[in-house]
Amino acid sequence: MPSHESLLSAAAREMRFSAIRRMSALIERPGIISFAPGQPSPETFPVEAFRQILDEVVEKEGAGAFQYILTRGLGTLLTAVGEYAAAKGIRSKPAELLLTEGSQQGLDLVSRVLVDPGDVVLVELPSYIGATSAFRASRARMTGVRLDEEGLDVDDLRRRHRAETAEGRRVKFLYVVPSFQNPSGISHSVARRRALLEAARELDLLVVEDDPYGDLYFEDDPRPTLKSMDEDSRVLYLSSFSKILAPGLRTAFLVGPEEIVAKIEIAKQSANLCGSGVDQRVILACLRRGLIEEQKARIRPYYRGKRDAMLAALEAEMPRGVRWTRPAGGLFVWVTLPEGMDAEKLLEAAVAEGVAYVAGGSFFVDGTGANTMRLTFAKEDIPTIQEGVKRLARAVRASLG
Amino acid sequence: MPSHESLLSAAAREMRFSAIRRMSALIERPGIISFAPGQPSPETFPVEAFRQILDEVVEKEGAGAFQYILTRGLGTLLTAVGEYAAAKGIRSKPAELLLTEGSQQGLDLVSRVLVDPGDVVLVELPSYIGATSAFRASRARMTGVRLDEEGLDVDDLRRRHRAETAEGRRVKFLYVVPSFQNPSGISHSVARRRALLEAARELDLLVVEDDPYGDLYFEDDPRPTLKSMDEDSRVLYLSSFSKILAPGLRTAFLVGPEEIVAKIEIAKQSANLCGSGVDQRVILACLRRGLIEEQKARIRPYYRGKRDAMLAALEAEMPRGVRWTRPAGGLFVWVTLPEGMDAEKLLEAAVAEGVAYVAGGSFFVDGTGANTMRLTFAKEDIPTIQEGVKRLARAVRASLG
Repeated sequence: MPSHESLLSAAAREMRFSAIRRMSALIERPGIISFAPGQPSPETFPVEAFRQILDEVVEKEGAGAFQYILTRGLGTLLTAVGEYAAAKGIRSKPAELLLTEGSQQGLDLVSRVLVDPGDVVLVELPSYIGATSAFRASRARMTGVRLDEEGLDVDDLRRRHRAETAEGRRVKFLYVVPSFQNPSGISHSVARRRALLEAARELDLLVVEDDPYGDLYFEDDPRPTLKSMDEDSRVLYLSSFSKILAPGLRTAFLVGPEEIVAKIEIAKQSANLCGSGVDQRVILACLRRGLIEEQKARIRPYYRGKRDAMLAALEAEMPRGVRWTRPAGGLFVWVTLPEGMDAEKLLEAAVAEGVAYVAGGSFFVDGTGANTMRLTFAKEDIPTIQEGVKRLARAVRASLG
Repeated sequence: MPSHESLLSAAAREMRFSAIRRMSALIERPGIISFAPGQPSPETFPVEAFRQILDEVVEKEGAGAFQYILTRGLGTLLTAVGEYAAAKGIRSKPAELLLTEGSQQGLDLVSRVLVDPGDVVLVELPSYIGATSAFRASRARMTGVRLDEEGLDVDDLRRRHRAETAEGRRVKFLYVVPSFQNPSGISHSVARRRALLEAARELDLLVVEDDPYGDLYFEDDPRPTLKSMDEDSRVLYLSSFSKILAPGLRTAFLVGPEEIVAKIEIAKQSANLCGSGVDQRVILACLRRGLIEEQKARIRPYYRGKRDAMLAALEAEMPRGVRWTRPAGGLFVWVTLPEGMDAEKLLEAAVAEGVAYVAGGSFFVDGTGANTMRLTFAKEDIPTIQEGVKRLARAVRASLG
């Protein structure tokens, strides 16, 4: 057999393991305090409830619980999720709603049914790396739009859109994570959300709203989702139970324009036939028992305490010239080092000090962001967060000279 | 918002719900005897064992059981699956093995990392519809190769390959289900397996071997998989626990050339991040307990009895001119009606008689096969199979006039 590489598709030839994956060999050492992983804390998972529910599912449904389910998702769960979304202000017809095995699958399917090679997808600077890798797999051309602490820079959105269409390219959608974004922790203000939708209407632009963290708000009531403000079926909304219940139960949902969701269902059938019947039945039981609302009430203060500890430690330890976001929810704080510093280079020194993070550059589709880093407060306990920030500050100070 | 259809990708514009899906509205009526579904019987699922295992998994692993797992699959399960495959004569290095959420996902990922629009994929006539729909989603050009009761027509394979390459097209791989194929029930003879590999070597062709049914043999010892006879890393092998344990626990595996598997892992990360940690832990426990071998021994006679009943009933009831395969394993019997009859048209009459099947035309990529149908003996019990075949024969006779 000659080179298998000669058989690869154009998309596969461009595929690389992500920077996060490449870093993981470096940072997964014993004794390292890790601000790196993009995962909720297992301490928040309602394990005892899962155990009871699993037993009841098998008791009540028997063998049927282990058969194939519909591509679109278990019928009873679709109904329950439709009601759950409606309670959050997102009303949908059955044809507009579909379950996916994690939001990552939703992003991938959206990309597959919308993007031809070279089509433009507008993303935030920085943007969620799982989304940009899905768009890249469809060979999208990604163009970054500026993000500040209030949200998307809507003037920049207009400029970028104009520039792309002037070159004859087709802009397929804008991808945003408006609430407590991974990686930046930024939540768009209500005014910016309105302005974003206003601009989308003007530009006749489809908006893909990814909302995995919206329920993890620590302060005020949550800001309205773009989808709840959507008047002309312009927003395709994705959310998930991964951060509220547990990510191992691969179950997420999307609500969008009927014609697009119909194509997503066909694409999903050839992508994986269907999801896990066990996982979906567990999520259904959690919804029916009110466990999801209980969980939200329980985990908000849990993560808020950790966020407070991380922000206080950064305040106490970091040298002048280092800035960071003060997220009002979610799992991430975003640190900006002085111009000219390189967070990827710094990582080795930080690991030598015994602390790890994710360098921010890979979250930027325009090659900028070398001086940024993503820290999560989800994994470590409060004393460990304090110690980890001390170590990190030491590494930063040493590098500043 | 104007037409969402104008936003669709080229692949999405070509996506249609499958014929099986379109038929399902027709055939899912109460009282219908169904030979249609492509599903194993829930009677074979080891429900009590699943219940105990689920309880033990949560007891022993706690919250960890519900966290994200690696894209490639749970490490412990990968090791166990490697040993399981080796016991079947399929040895692999860790870099050659990867878990997928059902074999359908494996087929989709294989297609995504190998196929550019217009690339040729050679498939059997007939071929598994889940595979052809995955290849179609990558915009492959599919070319059919003749299949007879002994297996693939290797001369036709050479001819088709030559014709495609003569036109300047790139043939990416041959896709085959050599054992108890869905839909035909055909199992390639050992001689044909050798001849197929010999031709693949000559043509320098990658072979994708899909083997969901190989362990469901009813008579002789199983024939060797192509992968176990593969001397030059020419075969990418897929198999699954769906037919042996239960399809709802979405867990399958593939073994293939290292360079291709590396790309599949990257593609999988952006496709769905990872599988269900609960499902994979259940499969692991089943392997460790020897439950899979127990299951195989238990379900072979179960399905053999049903196959025997269906073949006997066909023999007793069908009018002259109707032919069918005598599968030595798997879940399907393939019926060929007299030339000129149309199984899709006949379906309405059959449903009126109270019996359903899948018309065979959609399994052929070349538009032939209108006079064929797929019957499964998996779903109904033996008296119902007998009654169903009677009804079907009545419909056929009426149509023959």
